[in-house]
Amino acid sequence: MSQAAKETAKAAANAGSTNADATRRPVITTPREREIHIERIFDAPRERVWRAYTDPKLVAQWWGRGNKLVIERLEVERGGHWRFVEHAPDGVHGFEGRFREVTPPSRLVQTFEWDGLPGHVVLETTTFEDLGDGRTRVVTDSLFFTNEERDGMLQLGMSDGLNQSYAALDRLLASL
Amino acid sequence: MSQAAKETAKAAANAGSTNADATRRPVITTPREREIHIERIFDAPRERVWRAYTDPKLVAQWWGRGNKLVIERLEVERGGHWRFVEHAPDGVHGFEGRFREVTPPSRLVQTFEWDGLPGHVVLETTTFEDLGDGRTRVVTDSLFFTNEERDGMLQLGMSDGLNQSYAALDRLLASL
Repeated sequence: MSQAAKETAKAAANAGSTNADATRRPVITTPREREIHIERIFDAPRERVWRAYTDPKLVAQWWGRGNKLVIERLEVERGGHWRFVEHAPDGVHGFEGRFREVTPPSRLVQTFEWDGLPGHVVLETTTFEDLGDGRTRVVTDSLFFTNEERDGMLQLGMSDGLNQSYAALDRLLASL
Repeated sequence: MSQAAKETAKAAANAGSTNADATRRPVITTPREREIHIERIFDAPRERVWRAYTDPKLVAQWWGRGNKLVIERLEVERGGHWRFVEHAPDGVHGFEGRFREVTPPSRLVQTFEWDGLPGHVVLETTTFEDLGDGRTRVVTDSLFFTNEERDGMLQLGMSDGLNQSYAALDRLLASL
Protein backbone atom coordinates (compact mmCIF):
# COMPACT_ATOMS: atom_id res chain seq x y z
CA MET A 1 0.00 0.00 0.00
CA SER A 2 1.38 3.45 -0.89
CA GLN A 3 1.99 6.05 1.78
CA ALA A 4 -0.87 8.13 0.40
CA ALA A 5 -3.20 5.14 0.51
CA LYS A 6 -2.19 4.45 4.06
CA GLU A 7 -3.02 8.03 5.01
CA THR A 8 -6.34 7.74 3.25
CA ALA A 9 -7.13 4.49 5.01
CA LYS A 10 -6.18 6.02 8.31
CA ALA A 11 -8.36 9.04 7.61
CA ALA A 12 -11.25 6.78 6.68
CA ALA A 13 -10.77 4.74 9.82
CA ASN A 14 -10.76 7.93 11.86
CA ALA A 15 -13.83 9.20 10.05
CA GLY A 16 -15.55 5.90 10.67
CA SER A 17 -14.80 6.09 14.36
CA THR A 18 -15.77 9.74 14.78
CA ASN A 19 -19.16 9.06 16.28
CA ALA A 20 -17.77 6.47 18.61
CA ASP A 21 -14.95 8.85 19.58
CA ALA A 22 -17.35 11.64 20.43
CA THR A 23 -18.77 9.30 23.03
CA ARG A 24 -15.67 7.37 24.05
CA ARG A 25 -12.83 9.88 24.07
CA PRO A 26 -12.79 12.89 26.38
CA VAL A 27 -11.89 16.22 24.80
CA ILE A 28 -9.28 17.91 26.99
CA THR A 29 -8.42 21.56 26.26
CA THR A 30 -6.92 24.58 28.05
CA PRO A 31 -9.04 27.44 26.66
CA ARG A 32 -8.44 29.81 29.57
CA GLU A 33 -5.66 30.71 32.00
CA ARG A 34 -5.27 28.25 34.89
CA GLU A 35 -8.01 25.97 33.54
CA ILE A 36 -8.44 22.50 32.12
CA HIS A 37 -11.67 21.92 30.21
CA ILE A 38 -12.89 18.35 29.70
CA GLU A 39 -15.95 17.17 27.74
CA ARG A 40 -17.20 13.62 27.47
CA ILE A 41 -20.50 12.17 26.27
CA PHE A 42 -22.00 9.18 28.07
CA ASP A 43 -24.58 6.87 26.59
CA ALA A 44 -26.99 7.14 29.51
CA PRO A 45 -29.68 9.54 30.70
CA ARG A 46 -28.67 12.44 32.94
CA GLU A 47 -30.30 11.16 36.13
CA ARG A 48 -28.30 7.93 35.86
CA VAL A 49 -25.01 9.78 35.27
CA TRP A 50 -25.77 12.06 38.23
CA ARG A 51 -26.29 9.01 40.45
CA ALA A 52 -22.98 7.51 39.30
CA TYR A 53 -21.24 10.72 40.43
CA THR A 54 -23.00 11.11 43.78
CA ASP A 55 -23.96 7.68 45.16
CA PRO A 56 -20.98 6.29 47.14
CA LYS A 57 -21.78 2.69 46.11
CA LEU A 58 -21.67 3.67 42.45
CA VAL A 59 -18.67 6.03 42.67
CA ALA A 60 -16.67 3.19 44.22
CA GLN A 61 -17.23 1.17 41.02
CA TRP A 62 -15.66 3.57 38.50
CA TRP A 63 -13.70 6.47 40.04
CA GLY A 64 -10.74 4.23 40.94
CA ARG A 65 -10.19 3.06 37.32
CA GLY A 66 -10.63 -0.57 38.32
CA ASN A 67 -8.56 -0.24 41.50
CA LYS A 68 -10.12 -0.74 44.91
CA LEU A 69 -11.58 2.57 46.05
CA VAL A 70 -12.60 3.27 49.64
CA ILE A 71 -15.14 6.07 49.96
CA GLU A 72 -14.32 7.48 53.39
CA ARG A 73 -16.67 10.47 53.04
CA LEU A 74 -19.06 11.64 50.35
CA GLU A 75 -21.41 14.27 51.73
CA VAL A 76 -23.10 15.58 48.61
CA GLU A 77 -24.37 18.94 49.88
CA ARG A 78 -23.04 22.48 50.07
CA GLY A 79 -20.20 22.45 52.60
CA GLY A 80 -20.01 18.66 52.64
CA HIS A 81 -16.64 16.92 52.55
CA TRP A 82 -15.52 14.03 50.38
CA ARG A 83 -12.49 11.77 50.73
CA PHE A 84 -11.60 8.73 48.59
CA VAL A 85 -8.66 6.35 49.03
CA GLU A 86 -7.51 4.47 45.93
CA HIS A 87 -5.50 1.27 46.35
CA ALA A 88 -3.46 1.28 43.14
CA PRO A 89 -0.60 -1.07 42.15
CA ASP A 90 1.89 1.77 42.81
CA GLY A 91 0.52 2.54 46.27
CA VAL A 92 -2.32 4.06 48.24
CA HIS A 93 -3.53 7.49 47.11
CA GLY A 94 -5.88 9.74 49.06
CA PHE A 95 -8.01 12.44 47.45
CA GLU A 96 -10.31 14.89 49.16
CA GLY A 97 -12.24 18.10 48.89
CA ARG A 98 -15.43 19.90 49.71
CA PHE A 99 -18.62 20.82 47.91
CA ARG A 100 -19.21 24.47 47.08
CA GLU A 101 -22.45 23.88 45.19
CA VAL A 102 -24.74 20.87 44.62
CA THR A 103 -27.59 21.35 42.12
CA PRO A 104 -29.10 17.98 41.11
CA PRO A 105 -29.04 16.74 38.44
CA SER A 106 -27.16 19.41 36.52
CA ARG A 107 -24.22 20.92 38.42
CA LEU A 108 -21.55 20.13 41.03
CA VAL A 109 -18.87 22.57 42.21
CA GLN A 110 -16.27 21.09 44.49
CA THR A 111 -12.62 21.26 45.45
CA PHE A 112 -10.13 18.50 44.66
CA GLU A 113 -6.80 17.81 46.36
CA TRP A 114 -4.44 14.85 46.07
CA ASP A 115 -2.54 13.85 49.24
CA GLY A 116 0.65 13.71 47.16
CA LEU A 117 0.46 17.47 46.55
CA PRO A 118 -1.25 18.80 49.68
CA GLY A 119 -2.55 22.33 49.45
CA HIS A 120 -2.59 22.21 45.65
CA VAL A 121 -6.34 22.66 45.58
CA VAL A 122 -8.27 22.56 42.32
CA LEU A 123 -11.78 24.00 41.94
CA GLU A 124 -13.87 21.67 39.77
CA THR A 125 -17.15 22.66 38.15
CA THR A 126 -18.99 19.72 36.59
CA THR A 127 -22.13 20.16 34.51
CA PHE A 128 -24.41 17.39 33.29
CA GLU A 129 -26.22 18.24 30.05
CA ASP A 130 -29.20 16.20 28.90
CA LEU A 131 -28.68 15.73 25.14
CA GLY A 132 -32.33 14.75 24.66
CA ASP A 133 -31.52 11.41 23.02
CA GLY A 134 -30.78 9.39 26.14
CA ARG A 135 -27.18 10.61 26.25
CA THR A 136 -25.51 13.08 28.60
CA ARG A 137 -22.63 15.46 28.07
CA VAL A 138 -20.42 15.87 31.14
CA VAL A 139 -18.25 19.00 31.16
CA THR A 140 -15.64 19.52 33.86
CA ASP A 141 -13.75 22.79 34.23
CA SER A 142 -10.83 22.56 36.65
CA LEU A 143 -9.45 25.87 37.92
CA PHE A 144 -5.96 25.92 39.47
CA PHE A 145 -4.28 28.59 41.59
CA THR A 146 -1.55 28.98 38.94
CA ASN A 147 -0.75 27.89 35.37
CA GLU A 148 2.26 25.99 36.73
CA GLU A 149 -0.03 23.83 38.89
CA ARG A 150 -2.31 23.18 35.94
CA ASP A 151 0.56 22.21 33.65
CA GLY A 152 1.98 19.95 36.34
CA MET A 153 -1.34 18.11 36.46
CA LEU A 154 -1.38 17.70 32.68
CA GLN A 155 2.16 16.28 32.79
CA LEU A 156 1.19 13.75 35.46
CA GLY A 157 -0.54 11.79 32.70
CA MET A 158 -3.99 12.89 33.76
CA SER A 159 -5.61 11.88 30.47
CA ASP A 160 -4.68 8.18 30.78
CA GLY A 161 -6.24 7.96 34.21
CA LEU A 162 -9.26 9.87 32.98
CA ASN A 163 -9.75 7.49 30.04
CA GLN A 164 -9.66 4.53 32.38
CA SER A 165 -12.13 6.12 34.80
CA TYR A 166 -14.53 7.08 32.02
CA ALA A 167 -14.31 3.60 30.48
CA ALA A 168 -15.20 2.12 33.86
CA LEU A 169 -18.07 4.61 34.10
CA ASP A 170 -19.30 3.54 30.64
CA ARG A 171 -19.46 -0.07 31.85
CA LEU A 172 -21.21 0.90 35.08
CA LEU A 173 -23.81 3.05 33.29
CA ALA A 174 -24.55 0.21 30.83
CA SER A 175 -25.14 -2.16 33.75
CA LEU A 176 -27.55 0.05 35.71
CA MET B 1 -4.88 77.87 63.19
CA SER B 2 -4.58 78.28 59.41
CA GLN B 3 -5.50 75.47 57.06
CA ALA B 4 -1.83 75.13 56.14
CA ALA B 5 -0.85 74.91 59.80
CA LYS B 6 -3.52 72.28 60.40
CA GLU B 7 -2.14 70.22 57.55
CA THR B 8 1.35 70.63 58.98
CA ALA B 9 0.18 69.58 62.42
CA LYS B 10 -1.62 66.59 60.99
CA ALA B 11 1.49 65.61 59.04
CA ALA B 12 3.57 65.97 62.18
CA ALA B 13 1.12 63.85 64.16
CA ASN B 14 1.22 61.21 61.47
CA ALA B 15 5.00 61.38 61.38
CA GLY B 16 5.09 61.06 65.15
CA SER B 17 2.93 57.97 65.05
CA THR B 18 4.76 56.32 62.17
CA ASN B 19 6.95 54.10 64.29
CA ALA B 20 4.09 52.97 66.47
CA ASP B 21 1.96 52.35 63.37
CA ALA B 22 4.62 50.24 61.74
CA THR B 23 4.34 47.89 64.68
CA ARG B 24 0.68 48.15 65.57
CA ARG B 25 -1.18 48.53 62.31
CA PRO B 26 -1.08 45.88 59.59
CA VAL B 27 -0.42 47.15 56.08
CA ILE B 28 -3.00 45.59 53.75
CA THR B 29 -2.50 45.97 50.01
CA THR B 30 -3.56 44.25 46.76
CA PRO B 31 -0.36 44.52 44.67
CA ARG B 32 -1.17 41.59 42.38
CA GLU B 33 -4.19 39.96 40.77
CA ARG B 34 -6.19 37.71 43.12
CA GLU B 35 -3.93 38.53 46.08
CA ILE B 36 -4.09 40.26 49.42
CA HIS B 37 -0.72 41.23 50.90
CA ILE B 38 -0.48 41.91 54.63
CA GLU B 39 2.55 43.05 56.62
CA ARG B 40 2.77 43.49 60.38
CA ILE B 41 5.72 43.88 62.72
CA PHE B 42 5.63 42.21 66.14
CA ASP B 43 7.77 43.23 69.08
CA ALA B 44 9.09 39.71 69.74
CA PRO B 45 11.84 37.46 68.39
CA ARG B 46 11.04 35.21 65.45
CA GLU B 47 11.12 31.89 67.35
CA ARG B 48 8.49 33.21 69.75
CA VAL B 49 6.23 34.42 66.92
CA TRP B 50 6.62 31.08 65.16
CA ARG B 51 5.51 29.27 68.31
CA ALA B 52 2.47 31.52 68.61
CA TYR B 53 1.45 30.48 65.08
CA THR B 54 2.08 26.75 65.44
CA ASP B 55 1.52 25.67 69.07
CA PRO B 56 -2.21 24.86 69.55
CA LYS B 57 -2.20 26.13 73.15
CA LEU B 58 -0.83 29.49 71.99
CA VAL B 59 -2.93 29.78 68.81
CA ALA B 60 -6.06 29.32 70.95
CA GLN B 61 -5.12 32.48 72.87
CA TRP B 62 -5.04 34.96 69.98
CA TRP B 63 -6.45 33.63 66.68
CA GLY B 64 -10.07 33.95 67.91
CA ARG B 65 -9.73 37.70 68.64
CA GLY B 66 -10.70 37.18 72.27
CA ASN B 67 -13.50 34.72 71.45
CA LYS B 68 -13.34 31.12 72.60
CA LEU B 69 -11.41 29.12 69.99
CA VAL B 70 -11.44 25.33 69.85
CA ILE B 71 -8.44 23.88 68.02
CA GLU B 72 -9.86 20.66 66.60
CA ARG B 73 -6.78 19.88 64.51
CA LEU B 74 -3.43 21.57 64.02
CA GLU B 75 -0.99 19.19 62.35
CA VAL B 76 1.91 21.48 61.50
CA GLU B 77 3.61 19.42 58.81
CA ARG B 78 3.36 19.08 55.04
CA GLY B 79 -0.01 17.50 54.29
CA GLY B 80 -1.28 18.09 57.82
CA HIS B 81 -4.79 19.40 58.37
CA TRP B 82 -5.94 22.20 60.62
CA ARG B 83 -9.44 23.07 61.83
CA PHE B 84 -10.44 25.79 64.29
CA VAL B 85 -13.92 26.59 65.64
CA GLU B 86 -14.50 30.13 66.89
CA HIS B 87 -17.37 30.78 69.30
CA ALA B 88 -18.19 34.40 68.47
CA PRO B 89 -21.13 36.51 69.73
CA ASP B 90 -22.76 36.18 66.28
CA GLY B 91 -22.40 32.40 66.17
CA VAL B 92 -20.05 29.50 65.75
CA HIS B 93 -17.60 29.70 62.84
CA GLY B 94 -15.46 26.85 61.56
CA PHE B 95 -12.24 27.36 59.60
CA GLU B 96 -10.02 24.72 58.10
CA GLY B 97 -7.27 23.94 55.66
CA ARG B 98 -4.12 21.98 55.03
CA PHE B 99 -0.40 22.64 55.07
CA ARG B 100 1.43 22.71 51.76
CA GLU B 101 4.80 23.67 53.27
CA VAL B 102 6.17 24.01 56.81
CA THR B 103 9.70 25.49 57.16
CA PRO B 104 10.42 26.51 60.76
CA PRO B 105 10.87 29.24 61.78
CA SER B 106 10.51 31.20 58.55
CA ARG B 107 7.69 30.02 56.29
CA LEU B 108 4.23 28.43 56.31
CA VAL B 109 2.14 27.72 53.21
CA GLN B 110 -1.37 26.50 53.90
CA THR B 111 -4.91 26.63 52.62
CA PHE B 112 -7.71 28.50 54.38
CA GLU B 113 -11.44 27.95 54.07
CA TRP B 114 -14.33 29.34 56.11
CA ASP B 115 -17.35 27.03 56.61
CA GLY B 116 -19.59 29.95 55.62
CA LEU B 117 -18.16 29.90 52.08
CA PRO B 118 -17.23 26.25 51.55
CA GLY B 119 -14.95 25.57 48.62
CA HIS B 120 -13.76 29.18 48.52
CA VAL B 121 -10.23 28.09 49.30
CA VAL B 122 -7.48 30.66 49.85
CA LEU B 123 -3.78 29.78 49.58
CA GLU B 124 -1.87 31.60 52.33
CA THR B 125 1.91 32.03 52.37
CA THR B 126 3.22 33.44 55.66
CA THR B 127 6.85 34.45 56.14
CA PHE B 128 8.50 35.36 59.43
CA GLU B 129 11.42 37.78 59.02
CA ASP B 130 13.92 38.33 61.86
CA LEU B 131 14.49 42.11 61.92
CA GLY B 132 17.66 41.66 64.00
CA ASP B 133 16.48 43.95 66.82
CA GLY B 134 14.24 41.50 68.65
CA ARG B 135 11.32 42.24 66.34
CA THR B 136 9.75 40.11 63.62
CA ARG B 137 7.99 41.10 60.41
CA VAL B 138 5.15 38.76 59.47
CA VAL B 139 4.09 38.90 55.82
CA THR B 140 1.02 37.01 54.63
CA ASP B 141 0.12 36.70 50.96
CA SER B 142 -3.35 35.29 50.36
CA LEU B 143 -4.05 33.98 46.86
CA PHE B 144 -7.69 33.52 45.78
CA PHE B 145 -9.11 31.59 42.83
CA THR B 146 -10.62 34.82 41.45
CA ASN B 147 -10.51 38.59 42.03
CA GLU B 148 -14.20 38.46 42.95
CA GLU B 149 -13.46 36.08 45.83
CA ARG B 150 -10.63 38.30 47.01
CA ASP B 151 -12.77 41.43 46.91
CA GLY B 152 -15.55 39.63 48.73
CA MET B 153 -13.12 38.81 51.54
CA LEU B 154 -12.01 42.47 51.76
CA GLN B 155 -15.65 43.57 51.97
CA LEU B 156 -16.36 41.14 54.81
CA GLY B 157 -14.47 43.56 57.09
CA MET B 158 -11.37 41.40 57.17
CA SER B 159 -9.17 44.21 58.46
CA ASP B 160 -11.17 44.72 61.69
CA GLY B 161 -10.89 41.06 62.58
CA LEU B 162 -7.23 41.08 61.68
CA ASN B 163 -6.53 44.09 63.92
CA GLN B 164 -8.23 42.32 66.82
CA SER B 165 -6.30 39.09 66.24
CA TYR B 166 -2.97 40.89 65.95
CA ALA B 167 -3.66 42.96 69.09
CA ALA B 168 -4.37 39.71 70.96
CA LEU B 169 -1.15 38.29 69.53
CA ASP B 170 0.77 41.38 70.75
CA ARG B 171 -0.51 40.73 74.27
CA LEU B 172 0.31 37.02 74.10
CA LEU B 173 3.84 37.64 72.81
CA ALA B 174 4.48 40.17 75.59
CA SER B 175 3.40 37.61 78.17
CA LEU B 176 5.59 34.73 76.95
